[in-house]
This record gives sequence, structure tokens and C-alpha cells, in this order.
Amino acid sequence: MCELLGMSANVPTDICFSFTGLVQRGGVTGPHVDGWGITFYEGKGCRSFKDPAPSCKSKIAELVQAFPIKSQAVVGHIRQANRGCVSLENTHPFTRELWGQNWTYAHNGQLKGYKQLDTGFFRPIGATDSERAFCWILEQLRIKYPRKPANMKAMFKFVASLADQLRAKGVFNMLLSNGEFVMAYCSTNLHWITRRAPFGEAQLADADVTIDFYKETTPNDVVTMIATQPLTNNEQWQKIASGSYVLFKDGEVQ
Amino acid sequence: MCELLGMSANVPTDICFSFTGLVQRGGVTGPHVDGWGITFYEGKGCRSFKDPAPSCKSKIAELVQAFPIKSQAVVGHIRQANRGCVSLENTHPFTRELWGQNWTYAHNGQLKGYKQLDTGFFRPIGATDSERAFCWILEQLRIKYPRKPANMKAMFKFVASLADQLRAKGVFNMLLSNGEFVMAYCSTNLHWITRRAPFGEAQLADADVTIDFYKETTPNDVVTMIATQPLTNNEQWQKIASGSYVLFKDGEVQ
Repeated sequence: MCELLGMSANVPTDICFSFTGLVQRGGVTGPHVDGWGITFYEGKGCRSFKDPAPSCKSKIAELVQAFPIKSQAVVGHIRQANRGCVSLENTHPFTRELWGQNWTYAHNGQLKGYKQLDTGFFRPIGATDSERAFCWILEQLRIKYPRKPANMKAMFKFVASLADQLRAKGVFNMLLSNGEFVMAYCSTNLHWITRRAPFGEAQLADADVTIDFYKETTPNDVVTMIATQPLTNNEQWQKIASGSYVLFKDGEVQ
Repeated sequence: MCELLGMSANVPTDICFSFTGLVQRGGVTGPHVDGWGITFYEGKGCRSFKDPAPSCKSKIAELVQAFPIKSQAVVGHIRQANRGCVSLENTHPFTRELWGQNWTYAHNGQLKGYKQLDTGFFRPIGATDSERAFCWILEQLRIKYPRKPANMKAMFKFVASLADQLRAKGVFNMLLSNGEFVMAYCSTNLHWITRRAPFGEAQLADADVTIDFYKETTPNDVVTMIATQPLTNNEQWQKIASGSYVLFKDGEVQ
């Protein structure tokens, strides 16, 4: 299995604190040693950092921890391989263009019978069940909506119905974003927390690191974090019910 | 205008030396201050580093210079904006999937009448003439070759015929790679050099840096560099004729 990390915020926000917690799970406090990746949106563009090496030993992970890239939408993942070998092309998140937008996706879980998924125009590059499922979702969206729909909430509801079908094939926890929305679909484990004023201190569960968000934020900031398991041990995270999803935009539930 | 940088090699090779020369042109020895990007292939996967900030001041460029990422196929670009604002989504190289492969592209030049190019399935994300031209090339390839053709040299010849049409709209120097092949199409300026045993010293034209390739290589290494202008001042670079292209694989001309 793997761990997911997502963020949605109303102002460009860095994710250094949470990423520091997550990378510990890549070989120190967790067994997820088969690579990691993180995608930051900046407007319509996005940048990904990925490494097939364990996150706790990755030079590129050190850079991401040290370098405060600010974003309003982030999708991250650390991997414990089940389907597909350990290689760059099998490392999440995956990004593809649809409707002239970058869509980014990460999956935690394992699927059976995924080779029958018809991905149509979107062909997988790697060998994972995850990427094939992503291509299948995009193809279903392309068929249903030849152009970007005006009603994006209805579109994400349709994505959830596709995710339900994938969940029937195994375990399918997912993060999906176009840079504006971040969707969190839960099959087994996915938690979230929204931080807003008054901000307080948070203590990482996986490393001896504390942050005082009061010093790092302004009173109007709204920042939602999404993670497979809560990343802090002194805050109340909400678990998403199995088969449900939560949609975020600018840090707020939609 | 912009500057292109490409590499094709028969063994995974780092590009730190040439990249050090190129970044100088992003604000020190050249006027290309509107961002830079570089894509490294690792097998079927690829990783991109991009920054809308001038390369000579970029933290991420410092990382790429310091961190010897080894690859057999590289496409890089530094930008002086003409069409499209300075932003991440307008920063080259651009990567899209076709035939289940990552295709990476960078363009130097400027096109007129590019908004009429029908990009079909591949929709531009940013606002550059370059990305639209790339989407148009991919769409023409998708129509002509629904599956990956067995004869890739014929396919690249077809790409050159498309590039000829784009060159008729202005200036169109291009690098295109699928990780296996690197194609260099010249409209006005594009140079290349193949380094092989016996290796000697090279002196960067844009910075006071010398490298002794003999110390950095093995006798069987074959490494071709492609650049808008020669990056070294003590080696013989070859200029590609206007309207011509050179195709490389494993460092060798195909």
C-alpha cells in the first residue's frame, strides 16, 4: 500500500511541514520505500518532483523539504510497490491533459481485473494498475464531456461513480486535481483537516517537529490537508467514509 | 528568441557541464530571462525541472547544476518570451503522451497564424505558439499513425514535413524526443557535436569552466550535444542546414 498527501488552500501555501512527516514514512516510520512524488500547481501549470528511491533517502526529497514551493493545490504520494516495478514511469502522481487543463492523480490501493479497463485515447506509459485506472477515468470523462463542463461539481460526482466501479475491483483511495479543485475519494483510509484562524501549534506524528501555524499564516488563510493517516498527533482529523468523497476548492469543502 | 539544449547518449550521462553554460545565457551572457526548463528521460519515465524565473537566478537551476541526474535523452530550453506571458504553463519543454510514450518538445522561434492550427484531441494548456504547434504535430501523428509505427525513421521524416509547414509560418527550431530518439530540426540556428574516445578538454563559451571529458567518461561512451549556439569555444560544432533535421539515438546519427 501507499500513502497519499493532498492540499487545497485559498492562498499559495508551502507544504514543507507535512511533507517532512510524509517522507519519514518512506523508510523510517513506514515501509513505503518504492518511490515518491509530489505535484504542485502554479496557476494552470504544475511541477512534479519524483524519485523511484525511498523518500527518506532522496536528494530530491531533501530539496522539496528545504525549498518552500507555494501552491494552492498539491497532490503527493509515497509508494510501496504492488503492481508494476520500481521505476520512474510507475511513480505517482500521474499528470495528463484533459480539456486544456493539467489533471493530476494519485492512487493508494490495489485493483484486480484492471487490465480489462478500456483506456481509449489515453494510453498508460507504465505498468501500474493505478495509471491504467487514471487513463480509464479520463477516457470516460472525455466521452461524457467532450468539452469542459460548466458544472464541475456534477462532473466530480460522475468521477465518484467511476471510482465506485474501481473500488469494486479492490482498494481505491484517490486524490484528483485540476489545480482548482482537489477531490479525495476514500475506499479504506483517507483523512483531512482544515486549518484556519485562530491557528495553533501542530506536532508531527512521524518526526520530532512542531510548527506554530500562527507564525506562518495570515488570519484569512484556509488550508486543508488530506492524508492517508493523520500526519499530526494533536489535532482532530476527519476520516472520509468508505465509498464517499470530499471535494475541496480554495481550502473549503464544496 | 530562446535557446535549445539537447543530449543523446549511449550510456546514462549527466549534463551538468553544458547546463552550466546554458544557464549563463538566462540573464548573464544572454537575454533569455523568461524561464527555463529541462526534461531528463529515465527509461519510459521522464522528469522535468522548470522555472519561470531567470535561469541564472533560479534555485531549481542550482539544483540541476549540482545534482548529476544521468540520462540518455535530454531536452532543455531557456526562454525569452514573445508569445504568451511568463508563467509555468508557458515554460518549455512540453511533455505529452502518444502511443503510450512520453514525448517531449521544445521550440525556439516565433510563428504567425498559429491560432489556426487544429490541435484536435491535444488541447494547449498555456498560450504559446510553441505548445499549440506541438499539439498540432501530435494530432497529425495520431491521425496518420493510430498505433506506434514500426518504422520510426519514416515517422520522424513525416515530423520533418510537418516542421517544414510550421517553418513557413516563421521561425521553427525544434527538439523532439521520446526518450529513445532525439530529433533536431533547424530553421535558423541549431548546432551539434558528438564526443567519443579519445576524449579531450572542453572550455565553456559562457563561463570560465573547463572539463576534461577523459576523466568523466569510459572509452565506449558516445555523447551528442545539441544547442542553438555552440556551448564550447575549443571544439568543432556542426550547424544543421536550414530546413533540415538530424535524428540521434544512443548518441549516434541515425
